[in-house]
Amino acid sequence: MQKIIDLGKRVRLLEAASAVGHEEFFGPLGDLFDYHDESDKFGAKTWELSEGELDRITLNLLLKKAGLKPCDIDILFAGDLQNQCVASSQGLSSFGIPYIGLYGACSTSAEGLLCASMFLNSSKSLKRCASITSSHNCAAERQFRTPIEYGGQRTPTAQWTATAAGAFILERSDTEGTEKDTKSLKRNIYVREVMAGKIVDSGVSDAANMGAAMAPAAADTIESYFKKSESSPSDFDFIITGDLGKEGGEILRELLLSIGIDIRKNHSDCGVMMYDFKRQDVHSGASGCGCSASVLASYFIPRLKKGEIKNILFMATGALMSPSSIQQGGSIAGIAPLIHLTSE
Amino acid sequence: MQKIIDLGKRVRLLEAASAVGHEEFFGPLGDLFDYHDESDKFGAKTWELSEGELDRITLNLLLKKAGLKPCDIDILFAGDLQNQCVASSQGLSSFGIPYIGLYGACSTSAEGLLCASMFLNSSKSLKRCASITSSHNCAAERQFRTPIEYGGQRTPTAQWTATAAGAFILERSDTEGTEKDTKSLKRNIYVREVMAGKIVDSGVSDAANMGAAMAPAAADTIESYFKKSESSPSDFDFIITGDLGKEGGEILRELLLSIGIDIRKNHSDCGVMMYDFKRQDVHSGASGCGCSASVLASYFIPRLKKGEIKNILFMATGALMSPSSIQQGGSIAGIAPLIHLTSE
Repeated sequence: MQKIIDLGKRVRLLEAASAVGHEEFFGPLGDLFDYHDESDKFGAKTWELSEGELDRITLNLLLKKAGLKPCDIDILFAGDLQNQCVASSQGLSSFGIPYIGLYGACSTSAEGLLCASMFLNSSKSLKRCASITSSHNCAAERQFRTPIEYGGQRTPTAQWTATAAGAFILERSDTEGTEKDTKSLKRNIYVREVMAGKIVDSGVSDAANMGAAMAPAAADTIESYFKKSESSPSDFDFIITGDLGKEGGEILRELLLSIGIDIRKNHSDCGVMMYDFKRQDVHSGASGCGCSASVLASYFIPRLKKGEIKNILFMATGALMSPSSIQQGGSIAGIAPLIHLTSE
Repeated sequence: MQKIIDLGKRVRLLEAASAVGHEEFFGPLGDLFDYHDESDKFGAKTWELSEGELDRITLNLLLKKAGLKPCDIDILFAGDLQNQCVASSQGLSSFGIPYIGLYGACSTSAEGLLCASMFLNSSKSLKRCASITSSHNCAAERQFRTPIEYGGQRTPTAQWTATAAGAFILERSDTEGTEKDTKSLKRNIYVREVMAGKIVDSGVSDAANMGAAMAPAAADTIESYFKKSESSPSDFDFIITGDLGKEGGEILRELLLSIGIDIRKNHSDCGVMMYDFKRQDVHSGASGCGCSASVLASYFIPRLKKGEIKNILFMATGALMSPSSIQQGGSIAGIAPLIHLTSE
């Protein structure tokens, strides 16, 4: 049974950072990201190592923005889409921060924030945790589908794995701020509630339609949340999903409307926000661990900080499958953990 | 900086269950496992699906032993070695329990117990969490090395991926016990302390010598623990490592001895305990997520329950690599999260 865990104002989100590749920089949010590399290589020799470097650069940027050192972070939560999450472990090993590896497919961004918040709320001996997630188009495409050099045709429901990483520092609210914190933070962003997602398997087995596979899990999480909380969709400035894309987003809104929950006015999907569909040939939109993480870090967190928006639900959506599971005829289950952020 | 997190007596380990395959059943601990399948297939058509079934069966057994239903578990933490951790997500989706996917390679068993304990300590709205990890010899060998049908020669330092799963239920100590709990639990097992591990990369790149790759991470965790705690190795009945095997275990003991920490009298490695080296051709011993989980569940937890042993450190060890990272010349980093269990 899903439970909403109320964290009060005990955990705040201190800082966020993002880095992206070529295609993402040329999208509508391009200027908002902290760093980009037009070659998508980030100085590394292979696409897999490039993603590790993307992780390393993003965490470095995050620490710099927060005015903190690696030793100021008690635990680092991280995950990506590469087999055995090796982008995270290779890219982040040099920091020497105690490490918890996560795998929630593209939902890992919300999963990391959820876990970091729960850990900070659990013990006063932890002051700050960080969470980082990434994806890389060229590493993901050749692992999950075909190498990009192959030039395979993509179906209209296919999504474009974003080359992106997003990282966050959370801290216990009773932690004394550094001088820099006090100056830069006009408002506090709190992780007010978290809710883990259930694995929802609706029998979708088309690996080129992840949106359809993940939408039922997002619908399940939203339905559970509004049943258990005393709020309604209109209480939130945005109800954000990770990477359902155009196709999955429509399915989600229809599924919810059929049970009397209308999120049409305030639903945003990071996978739709990432690219300009007129200029960029990305079919149903962006996907990947780094998509939701980088859009949250670059677009929503700064707006929460400024007080332009005050209350959001963020739900990253993950498709739980592997190339083997698809080849063996398995269906693609979805999952969608949720966090509730406020700006006060 | 690694921190020991003191959980007092707020989280107890309620029940444990294990299931194994052919080779493990014929090892010295064979009779202690709750279930075995001599075909290693667990009723499924492919090795990958077999591991999912192994997970499903083990979690079912665990719930039965504890007299609980899936709805009594608030969050399930799970992970395995298959790409995208698909054994866990496929095998466990039918339970409908809110799910947090983990990836810590073979360290996932301790990572899951650590996370479940931290979550339970974090919020009174959670009563019980479960943690499960698995590995399957035939699924792992063909994913990481070669299919077993190929009959490749193995080096003396190579380990045998165990076909095994171990699962645990933890609960907040202020949760009222069911009738069955009160009867079966003569003593309480508490998760007294937890400590996340750092990623330690010592430059080992031989995928047939995981023990050497993981031993420095285990040494780092043990050194940190004894530096920060006021205890010494002799305070513990056992200091248990996950799956260093013969080779890695020796390296660990030597590394620690060189800095004045002597664990030779009370060190046990689950990878060494799993098989009979005289009868079974397993080279350096067992490895895999399921190795440490099933040995903890079947051998150590029952002894803690009976009070035969009272104080143990359990550290599962993970090798953070993928076939791609090895092929691209990457080294294998290790990680070793720790939990401290007492029986009172």
